[in-house]
Amino acid sequence: MKISVMSDILKANDLLAEDIKKLLFEKNITAWNLMGSPGSGKTAILERLIPMLPETLRAAVIEGDLATSNDAVRIARTGVQSTQINTGGACHLDAAMIRSALEEIEIDAISILFIENVGNLVCPSSFSLGESGRIIVSSITEGDDKPEKYPSMFKTADLVLVNKMDLLGNTNFQMESFMKGMRKVNRNASVLPVSAIEGTGFDSTLQWLLKHVKKSR
Amino acid sequence: MKISVMSDILKANDLLAEDIKKLLFEKNITAWNLMGSPGSGKTAILERLIPMLPETLRAAVIEGDLATSNDAVRIARTGVQSTQINTGGACHLDAAMIRSALEEIEIDAISILFIENVGNLVCPSSFSLGESGRIIVSSITEGDDKPEKYPSMFKTADLVLVNKMDLLGNTNFQMESFMKGMRKVNRNASVLPVSAIEGTGFDSTLQWLLKHVKKSR
Repeated sequence: MKISVMSDILKANDLLAEDIKKLLFEKNITAWNLMGSPGSGKTAILERLIPMLPETLRAAVIEGDLATSNDAVRIARTGVQSTQINTGGACHLDAAMIRSALEEIEIDAISILFIENVGNLVCPSSFSLGESGRIIVSSITEGDDKPEKYPSMFKTADLVLVNKMDLLGNTNFQMESFMKGMRKVNRNASVLPVSAIEGTGFDSTLQWLLKHVKKSR
Repeated sequence: MKISVMSDILKANDLLAEDIKKLLFEKNITAWNLMGSPGSGKTAILERLIPMLPETLRAAVIEGDLATSNDAVRIARTGVQSTQINTGGACHLDAAMIRSALEEIEIDAISILFIENVGNLVCPSSFSLGESGRIIVSSITEGDDKPEKYPSMFKTADLVLVNKMDLLGNTNFQMESFMKGMRKVNRNASVLPVSAIEGTGFDSTLQWLLKHVKKSR
């Protein structure tokens, strides 16, 4: 019973997500669903990345949080359009929330959309938002066992950004262990180390993004 | 519709949780629901705390994860009973899972039970497990804005352990900002700084626990 209800909810979400995907395709917008644990550094990564985008790639950001508009305020300082969704109690964004948020964005002016999901390494993975791809942020202070412990999230990633590399010497994180777990659940995703605090690894991240922006542009 | 289904699920869970609470009360067991983000240090804290417990307080641990039995294996090394629940896709433990897990524990031999929930700062807060109280682990590398951004979790805490204090000099975490957010959502919870890696703060944590163990003992 519980399972069939859940499956109905997911089906309804998928239908809406398909509409969003079509709209974004028509408008030539590449959309990234950015996911990760609370405090993994999703917003800090966007703050680094957005100012590096070429003039031809105008961005907008949809921020998802249970409460506060802190993150949309931070993003607005980079000069791009940003809008905040507060989910109340909900542990993830869904396609209906994105459809509403898109009405607040001047989408004819953009060609790349970042959707920062609620900080959560479980629920957001089940809900398509009509995105072109998924970026997971995993910070090294969370430990190197996360891909194996949260497989449903990591197996859907196109890119994994391993953040907080500046703290490597202060933790027992082993990149080799992380990659071993990662390859058990996802053989294809790219994995790039970054430090949002120090700004390292963002040239490679930008190259990856540019390579994966719609071929049609 | 979605909301009424959710409320039915929560009601069914609460009924089961009440049964567990009664059982634990009869057996004179104090049970803690330990929650926090992925990688906040919940297991590492138990590894520090359990060996410090007095002989008169025998403990057992129920570990909750989507996948792997890594954490139950780590806990077993401390010499106490431990059992692993794998939730599959589910983002939190529920009372039915705890009822099953309790059948695997020799409960007449224990007087304190730690239930380590799935790493998630949202969903676990809605599901009572029949616990005596709630301990939230929040690591400083997650940032000092977490109480305000995840209010549903922090408002239910009896104790908040602020972990990874050894990294304080390497982050921009401000305890004053954390406490300001914390007091907006929860005026009563105790807040104690700890470092599971260095072992600092555990005398105070143990004193807090002993003070809150059932008066009847």
